[in-house]
Amino acid sequence: MLSFDRQDALDLDAGDALAAYRDRFELPDGVIYLDGNSLGALPHATPAHLMDIVKDQWGKGLVTSWNQHDWIGMPMRLGRMIAPLIGASEDEVIACDSTSINLFKLIAAGAATRPGRIVILTEEGGFPTDRYIADAVAAQTGALRVRALARDAVTAGIDEDVAVVVLTHVDYRSGDQCDMAAVTAAAHAKGALILWDLSHSAGAVAVDLAGCNADLAVGCGYKYLNGGPGAPSYLFVAQRLQTLLPAVLPGWMGHAQPFAFEETYRPAEGLARFLCGTPPILAMAALEQGLAQFDGVDLDRLFSKGRALGDLYIRLMEERCHRYGFMLASPRQSIDRGSHVCFAHDQAYPICRALIERGVIGDFRAPNLLRMGFTPLYTRFVDIWDAVETVHAVMEERAWDDDRLQQREIVT
Amino acid sequence: MLSFDRQDALDLDAGDALAAYRDRFELPDGVIYLDGNSLGALPHATPAHLMDIVKDQWGKGLVTSWNQHDWIGMPMRLGRMIAPLIGASEDEVIACDSTSINLFKLIAAGAATRPGRIVILTEEGGFPTDRYIADAVAAQTGALRVRALARDAVTAGIDEDVAVVVLTHVDYRSGDQCDMAAVTAAAHAKGALILWDLSHSAGAVAVDLAGCNADLAVGCGYKYLNGGPGAPSYLFVAQRLQTLLPAVLPGWMGHAQPFAFEETYRPAEGLARFLCGTPPILAMAALEQGLAQFDGVDLDRLFSKGRALGDLYIRLMEERCHRYGFMLASPRQSIDRGSHVCFAHDQAYPICRALIERGVIGDFRAPNLLRMGFTPLYTRFVDIWDAVETVHAVMEERAWDDDRLQQREIVT
Repeated sequence: MLSFDRQDALDLDAGDALAAYRDRFELPDGVIYLDGNSLGALPHATPAHLMDIVKDQWGKGLVTSWNQHDWIGMPMRLGRMIAPLIGASEDEVIACDSTSINLFKLIAAGAATRPGRIVILTEEGGFPTDRYIADAVAAQTGALRVRALARDAVTAGIDEDVAVVVLTHVDYRSGDQCDMAAVTAAAHAKGALILWDLSHSAGAVAVDLAGCNADLAVGCGYKYLNGGPGAPSYLFVAQRLQTLLPAVLPGWMGHAQPFAFEETYRPAEGLARFLCGTPPILAMAALEQGLAQFDGVDLDRLFSKGRALGDLYIRLMEERCHRYGFMLASPRQSIDRGSHVCFAHDQAYPICRALIERGVIGDFRAPNLLRMGFTPLYTRFVDIWDAVETVHAVMEERAWDDDRLQQREIVT
Repeated sequence: MLSFDRQDALDLDAGDALAAYRDRFELPDGVIYLDGNSLGALPHATPAHLMDIVKDQWGKGLVTSWNQHDWIGMPMRLGRMIAPLIGASEDEVIACDSTSINLFKLIAAGAATRPGRIVILTEEGGFPTDRYIADAVAAQTGALRVRALARDAVTAGIDEDVAVVVLTHVDYRSGDQCDMAAVTAAAHAKGALILWDLSHSAGAVAVDLAGCNADLAVGCGYKYLNGGPGAPSYLFVAQRLQTLLPAVLPGWMGHAQPFAFEETYRPAEGLARFLCGTPPILAMAALEQGLAQFDGVDLDRLFSKGRALGDLYIRLMEERCHRYGFMLASPRQSIDRGSHVCFAHDQAYPICRALIERGVIGDFRAPNLLRMGFTPLYTRFVDIWDAVETVHAVMEERAWDDDRLQQREIVT
């Protein structure tokens, strides 16, 4: 006999003070969307906002809209909207470029402030782009090398050779959440800077960059921030470092006076120096609406709900599906976890495909992980119940054991 | 007595086989838009296309649209649409990132293929971002320095020390057009690579990268390609060089197998290695529609019309407005010019503002240039006539001599 049933899930939703925020999003009938950690859902307000920018600002205002509608200020304006979600001050965040590009800027710039130190320290098995970019910065300077350690060995591996520690706050596969305060303090104790990748945290998990005295951060706009496919990224530089870090990708938008068209680069005061080329206004506008969905949200409650969703998913998967061979591959304690949960299973890939065919959208991560993400702004407790019931049905019926579902294809 | 009047301009439009293409664009009543070289006009088809991608593909398809709607293929798909506009093969162009970022990738990668050569050769007074990025590449490698020469001295300045020549095909101020074939041959004669910035060329001016045997190029999506504010850029790498150039910004999208999430970067075959982070799909979608406006256009006729528009503007400005002190600051011969024309005037800034108040949108470029750009897809001959008449009226009435108009502000 189950200790928890579907009515209990419905009761949790009925008591959820955040439940109404779900109505701000387009969530198709018949779909249980547990992949907002890959691509966040569409806010209802986004299409009209984009149409205003396209038809009115671009179509009618044409080039004058750069000033009239303050397109030029969008990177800073969006940064101010992101700041409270990650515990930063308003003048510490800008939205621009991609996460990969922002990693390059900040790893290289951070290392430049630690002359004589020869190591970029990062984790094995983190998100690939972080590692590739760290390797590229090292190769291009010639004076640096990358030291990659197991995630749980990074703290002990920080020594006086380390210029910058690059670490993902929440691991994209396991969902393991670092102790940001402790690792940051360890880096500082050895004189290193730390750069946090918040891609799988911001908007779903409590992040307190200021409280942890963090130095640098980057993150993704298209996951829990609901900015749309390939939305611009953001970067954070602590106020105390902003004038110390060089602009390593010094495009014209980061110049102190972009429209003076000077021959020599002079970095803008503050964060604007980390801009590079012209910002993609339409993509920025969609991100702006994604961020606007956090207006009025009690963040403590939001993050608490995210943890409760993950806890319920683990409990129900273990109660209902353990016998099919699913092994928890994420931290059990919600304090140690982000807002997604992985279970390992030999047949994770075809199981994931079978679930998608039945409207439960999660994703597969090599080699054997079934990953489900919980966006506390719009995921309901009953979605967790129904998702696990669908996993149960797929396993009972061996619905995954179908040649069509075995073939590997791109799963983002 | 004038040798040409408004009816003559209308007659030219009546005989223009491309005149109907104007109907594809949103061009507000009461505005003569001569700044499509800064921000191209909105194609009528773009809003509906964007809404389809936003509401249907993102809203309903969610993360599955990366495959279902081939978002993942957009950089290559858009590249294939750009290729014929610049005389490239379909597999030589991709759309991605900003022009500044793409300059960084290709200058650094190009220089890496010429070990032992120590110079990035570029022009004085070119578009700032090109220079800033060249300086940054030089500073970061440590082994390179930038040699900047007057535009007309670049060819003579190419020697065996030069790794890469970075040159703008059409100068953003004067409109001066380089002889791409001659300068490319001169670079090759000394063993250097050449990188062309096509931002002020593509879509309005004939460009034949293959015919000139060019090596590398970058360009802008938001000017004559009508991709919207801050639209993604594109880059060109000649087929013969694609496997030789390293990926200097090796983001996960440029990996041979992005979704294998490997620890070590392996560049994709061909151009895809020059991708970096996740492409901004909404911005790409708008660029896709901008490019679709070239469907069916006779390009020779288009570029010929662009030259004729510039010729007419020069002729009318000199006939009607010479006495007010305007001095031609662009090449007189259309073969030496891009699709915009500058006149120098001490009061160029307030004159530009006064023109904008009367609906003639051109722009000011420091220190004293009034710049007008002609987009042959939608600019009419009568627009040239009316614009010059408005300049004439502004000067006659001293409408620019107004304190409101003297104050400098950002003009993009």
